[in-house]
Amino acid sequence: MTDPLAALGRLRARAAELDAADPLAHHRDAFVRTGDVVAYLDGNSLGRPLHVTRCALAGFVDGVWGDRLIRAWDEQWMDAPTELGDRIGRVLLGAGAGQTVVGDSTSVMLYKLAHAALTSPAAEGRDEIVACADDFPTDRFILEGLAADRGLTIRWLVVDPRTGVTLDQVRDVLSERTALVLLSHVSYRSAWIADMAAITAAAHRAGALVLWDLCHAVGALDLALDALDVDLAVGCTYKYLNGGPGAPAFGYVAARLQDRLRQPIQGWMGAADPFAMGERYEPASGIRRFISGTPPIVGMLPMRDMLDLLESAGIAAVRAKSVALTEYAIEVHDALLAPYGVELGSTRDPDLRGGHVILDHPDFQEVTARLWERGVIPDFRPPHGLRVGLSPLSTGFAEVLAGLGAVAEVLAG
Amino acid sequence: MTDPLAALGRLRARAAELDAADPLAHHRDAFVRTGDVVAYLDGNSLGRPLHVTRCALAGFVDGVWGDRLIRAWDEQWMDAPTELGDRIGRVLLGAGAGQTVVGDSTSVMLYKLAHAALTSPAAEGRDEIVACADDFPTDRFILEGLAADRGLTIRWLVVDPRTGVTLDQVRDVLSERTALVLLSHVSYRSAWIADMAAITAAAHRAGALVLWDLCHAVGALDLALDALDVDLAVGCTYKYLNGGPGAPAFGYVAARLQDRLRQPIQGWMGAADPFAMGERYEPASGIRRFISGTPPIVGMLPMRDMLDLLESAGIAAVRAKSVALTEYAIEVHDALLAPYGVELGSTRDPDLRGGHVILDHPDFQEVTARLWERGVIPDFRPPHGLRVGLSPLSTGFAEVLAGLGAVAEVLAG
Repeated sequence: MTDPLAALGRLRARAAELDAADPLAHHRDAFVRTGDVVAYLDGNSLGRPLHVTRCALAGFVDGVWGDRLIRAWDEQWMDAPTELGDRIGRVLLGAGAGQTVVGDSTSVMLYKLAHAALTSPAAEGRDEIVACADDFPTDRFILEGLAADRGLTIRWLVVDPRTGVTLDQVRDVLSERTALVLLSHVSYRSAWIADMAAITAAAHRAGALVLWDLCHAVGALDLALDALDVDLAVGCTYKYLNGGPGAPAFGYVAARLQDRLRQPIQGWMGAADPFAMGERYEPASGIRRFISGTPPIVGMLPMRDMLDLLESAGIAAVRAKSVALTEYAIEVHDALLAPYGVELGSTRDPDLRGGHVILDHPDFQEVTARLWERGVIPDFRPPHGLRVGLSPLSTGFAEVLAGLGAVAEVLAG
Repeated sequence: MTDPLAALGRLRARAAELDAADPLAHHRDAFVRTGDVVAYLDGNSLGRPLHVTRCALAGFVDGVWGDRLIRAWDEQWMDAPTELGDRIGRVLLGAGAGQTVVGDSTSVMLYKLAHAALTSPAAEGRDEIVACADDFPTDRFILEGLAADRGLTIRWLVVDPRTGVTLDQVRDVLSERTALVLLSHVSYRSAWIADMAAITAAAHRAGALVLWDLCHAVGALDLALDALDVDLAVGCTYKYLNGGPGAPAFGYVAARLQDRLRQPIQGWMGAADPFAMGERYEPASGIRRFISGTPPIVGMLPMRDMLDLLESAGIAAVRAKSVALTEYAIEVHDALLAPYGVELGSTRDPDLRGGHVILDHPDFQEVTARLWERGVIPDFRPPHGLRVGLSPLSTGFAEVLAGLGAVAEVLAG
């Protein structure tokens, strides 16, 4: 083993260099940093708040809610789900207007879009769903419920946990029985980037629709949903979109599909004319039909502030910083953590890796608890993964070193 | 016609008397009053914000979200849906702990509980739903979608628009085919209070479950769900609970039913152990199984403040004031509006009337627009109803007169 202190010194100099050269470094001051946190390595579970969000929330109480009262629905709130959706689409998804809507939780949005796909004319006579056995629980659980209710079979893909789902694996199970493929674009564990272009194209050749879970992708990767002919997608706004705990999800439905799909939760806000109080449900045309209940306006406020920041930074620059951060985390892993038996659970190929890395060690459940006590906050993912999430605009390289250095100290002690 | 100015003088003196004698009058100062609003008669569509909510939202950004970050899930947010549900249950619903949960929109919660009822063992072999043709659109639309998807028939009750659904009407259609009865406790148009006790008992005798929509009841009426043996209920928190635009709904599931029901949107947060990331969905025991996605924490904040206020006022006193307000509104109608051909669309029996009254006149769509221009804000409900919602803690008697006096002036002009 080389002298760990020498390695630490070298890594510290390198972090200083990277922070000094980081064109997005100044954005870090936009985020609230209070309390005892030395290194926040979980921005991909819950992003930090922005200072401006404090004012946005307080100002909303007096300026819009208190002042305009019910009139604000006509004046601005009715359009909030699609206006905000369009912004997410334009700034982050590579999606033209009229295809993205904000509302519900990710689980509910996932259910609605999966249900819509499974009851679409294209799914007629098809009784299989393709999904990944290593995917985030909510995706698997939602499908399990839908499949049981509708008498469908799920073809579970078992993947290498260090990487993720491959085109060949998907191709092997696609058939004229496949109604829907549901996959994560970025694996919540390994950060593996699934090949959206090739998998979508393969599914289309088999006559199936694809629903992409973008939870760990949006805000860290440069996406191109329209260009890749994506059908459906859902994503989360409390991770890299810093929308706050439980902020509403977004759903994307390609324009070409919208009028052929019906979602199951036919609430009044998805009706063609909600205030006509009509006798029968007539779905709105376009993306509005995927709205169910009254849009969660208060919950939509914080993400607007982060969208401003992401737009001004530019998603390409954000992705470049994200790659630099994970590359540096791997450098620290190799020098400080590998000697203690820590293994890298993410690919070394930055083109196939999202905004986080996962590290594996048998003691990491216990280590995580000790890290939290000293203000170093990664996430733990069973069976023994320390997940290091590096939100590009709020995380610096020195912070990465402070966090992973603490992991080394705990392992060494 | 008696001299309208004499009537106005008498009504003004009466309002002053009532405001002076109102034991809850001081609570009005707790609400934000900015801008141009002279009379807010739509607190049953969107309640006013409380001053304290401004601080609660801003303080949350620094104090919990920014400071505790992801740790706040373990420390407090995981329990927020049930802790807040229990408070709503105790303060407003007459519901013991462990039966109420906050989350989703009302439409989504309604869908989940209706779906759970329709797939319950009790519904086996039953293919009819009983509902009211005059009910709020989202209730009807959600059922319409569920019935179409599951091959069920809806027995629509057509009611007298001046009153609402009666026990006899429900009894006439109940049979061994009835799986579910869905009704509003308080009609969104007429404010008619359906007989929860008798209708629930009748449905139970027929072997059916009842789902009560409490949107226009909760926070204005003193409810007793446990005592009346209610099965299921949903309600809204942005009306009399002042939770802000699109604040999450609540759902109530009687303890005796919980473990026999499965809701359709099997998200990770309703699983027995969300962080085990288990292979298969295993529903949590108790009310938690009715949670789907990540709870909307930011959206839950404002309603907490109003719950404090409602608890300190006491729901019996709130109901007493609500009755006094609607009685006074009817007095003003009789003296000032009836001469212009306005008809009362709500019952005169205060025991059968909720927290609002509806007034009918052929010109009310146009009148509403003119009222809004002068800062008098009722709601309009087709075909020609002016809905006067009188949120008990934020509305005074003089405000009722200012609002309805303006209606008379517009009609007279």
